[in-house]
Amino acid sequence: MRIGRDTDTSPGQDRLARAALTWLAEPADPQLSALLRTCSPASIVAALTAGTVPVGAPPSRATGAPGAGIPGLDRAFRRWSARLGGAPTEATLDAWQRAGIELLCPGDPGWPGQLDLLGDARPWALWVRGRADLRFACLRSVSIVGTRAATAYGIHVCTEMAAALAERGWAVVSGGAFGIDGCAHRSAIAAEGITVAVLPSGLDEPYPRGHDGLFQAIAAHGALVSEWPPGKPPTRPGFLVRNRVIAALSRGTVLVEAALRSGALNTARHARDQDRPLMAVPGPVTSETSAGCHLAIREWGAECVTGARDVIASVSFGAGEETGLPLGPVLARDELGPEIRSVLEAVPARAGWGPARIAVAAGVDFDSVMRCLGQLAAAGFVERCERGWRLRSPR
Amino acid sequence: MRIGRDTDTSPGQDRLARAALTWLAEPADPQLSALLRTCSPASIVAALTAGTVPVGAPPSRATGAPGAGIPGLDRAFRRWSARLGGAPTEATLDAWQRAGIELLCPGDPGWPGQLDLLGDARPWALWVRGRADLRFACLRSVSIVGTRAATAYGIHVCTEMAAALAERGWAVVSGGAFGIDGCAHRSAIAAEGITVAVLPSGLDEPYPRGHDGLFQAIAAHGALVSEWPPGKPPTRPGFLVRNRVIAALSRGTVLVEAALRSGALNTARHARDQDRPLMAVPGPVTSETSAGCHLAIREWGAECVTGARDVIASVSFGAGEETGLPLGPVLARDELGPEIRSVLEAVPARAGWGPARIAVAAGVDFDSVMRCLGQLAAAGFVERCERGWRLRSPR
Repeated sequence: MRIGRDTDTSPGQDRLARAALTWLAEPADPQLSALLRTCSPASIVAALTAGTVPVGAPPSRATGAPGAGIPGLDRAFRRWSARLGGAPTEATLDAWQRAGIELLCPGDPGWPGQLDLLGDARPWALWVRGRADLRFACLRSVSIVGTRAATAYGIHVCTEMAAALAERGWAVVSGGAFGIDGCAHRSAIAAEGITVAVLPSGLDEPYPRGHDGLFQAIAAHGALVSEWPPGKPPTRPGFLVRNRVIAALSRGTVLVEAALRSGALNTARHARDQDRPLMAVPGPVTSETSAGCHLAIREWGAECVTGARDVIASVSFGAGEETGLPLGPVLARDELGPEIRSVLEAVPARAGWGPARIAVAAGVDFDSVMRCLGQLAAAGFVERCERGWRLRSPR
Repeated sequence: MRIGRDTDTSPGQDRLARAALTWLAEPADPQLSALLRTCSPASIVAALTAGTVPVGAPPSRATGAPGAGIPGLDRAFRRWSARLGGAPTEATLDAWQRAGIELLCPGDPGWPGQLDLLGDARPWALWVRGRADLRFACLRSVSIVGTRAATAYGIHVCTEMAAALAERGWAVVSGGAFGIDGCAHRSAIAAEGITVAVLPSGLDEPYPRGHDGLFQAIAAHGALVSEWPPGKPPTRPGFLVRNRVIAALSRGTVLVEAALRSGALNTARHARDQDRPLMAVPGPVTSETSAGCHLAIREWGAECVTGARDVIASVSFGAGEETGLPLGPVLARDELGPEIRSVLEAVPARAGWGPARIAVAAGVDFDSVMRCLGQLAAAGFVERCERGWRLRSPR
């Protein structure tokens, strides 16, 4: 292996490089994780293109050979190089953006900071489609996961729980699968809440195809998220690696129904390993689809939750959140962008204004006002009232 | 109040006095508990009869007046004195014994030592009816309690659990009530196990009367136990005070189904307060009769158990008990009485002998051999095999 030249990389180059990395390497690939500790994304892709080792790759302790400090890097480079031809270009990124699929990179304003807690296993980037601002949506969110083979009991409990959470301003995160996942998304949407689906495939053909209609609705009421670029079909290992993002995006994970060998149990394990609140809904001990929930309660310290009230008590930071009463925002005003801050400043304290009036006062177009209001509501700044929107007054 | 003379009391007098105390004072009466720290039962009853304060009653710190160290003792004495006329005599004790109802006092060979852990709240004495030796039966026992308004789910789970415990040599303790309690007793009997009912009324008319047939069967396969002498009907406070004995007799308590305001929850609280393993069976969160179980799991640290296997793992002292495999006895041989030791010495190590042959070898009558074998089995010394009885070999 030759050693690449030290090329300064720009943020724009890193952005395109991260898009490429989502195509080249699987999420949480250990060699790429190790490499990103010392090399920029752009320098890695440049080195791959040039057939060299990127400058800054950890050298071997024994020989000093660059890159030899990462076991298996040679083979990984060959694996990634073989895929270089299909990597997205500026043009493909533009095309996907026109189709509504955006790239979100670490450090972007919309990047959910809690993903950084994954450390080396942080996604290279996320592909996102939907109206909701992912960062805002996930600030006050709960993951609800469970088996595809849900029973009437599980569907009932999940429907009630997701609706109650959504009604109290909590976003519902799940994996978009049949059964419990789909039910959680649907119920949050029915309650006019925000929901986020973290999918195991590219967003151009989200998996499973039978949920195409649901995915349209999720994009309209929340966001579809994937670590894989458009064009990537789902793989079995991909399902499992995806689950860590479901757990990491939300404040806590609820297992509604899960058999003992269930993908949902894998998500629960991620939540536990990430030291996030893990909760499980008990069920009949005679039901195989509740056995995973009971295992999580018995063996993994999952909290036994019987409904949204228990869940909110578990993931809340303060009393205001618990009761669903007005409460202070979860973000400082300083952290808001200029447009959303203009909208916030136009929202009246008491009377309640319609979005059109707020748009005029803020000098922001109507669609943007609608988007900003949803984000401000999720972050606890504003609330809906009979006559429109008003500031949330902390009691 | 006059001060009684210092009369030495004999064990026989104390025994009759304890029988009287079960009639005179409610279990765990605080004044009597305090008095028994320094006075013998016989001296208390003698003082009551004489209308004096018993010698040794704690004096007032201020005036030195005997008995004045126990607040409310005056009134308690008047309450007890008023009942003196109905207190059992030697003659009534004999009559009850002929009817199969025996008095068991602290320190008796058959007294379950774990009751002494109740401290001041230890029963004054127990009234017992049944074939089983209470002490042996409870050495390896589990309490199963729950609502009277059991659902088909609760009955199913309780039946399976009690049968599995009984089959593995665990005695099942409960309160003899309709619903879960009765189901636990019945299932243990059906599995040819030992079961103990702790009742809230005198054993001459055990409550509830609708369980008369079941109580006959329990007496034949285990024991009926009460803190109240024959002739005492159940009272509402009596139900609750009785529950502490259910919890104290067994190694752990399992809540199968319980609504939020359920007597079974009171038993569960006793188990928790006594630092015994408390377990609860989860159920549908939509079922009111499982709400108490979920409360116990969420708030009181009850272990979530899904069946007998989980229960045994929780209350076992060692691996042998957990698996139900042969294991060493829970008592030392030295602690056995002479008759039962003779029987144990006659039991063969491998082949298995019938009880008649063991009776001849031990020089003990057949009925006693049958009783002793049951006790030895409960204590882990012997086991049934195809051809009769043999020693249990620790693996």
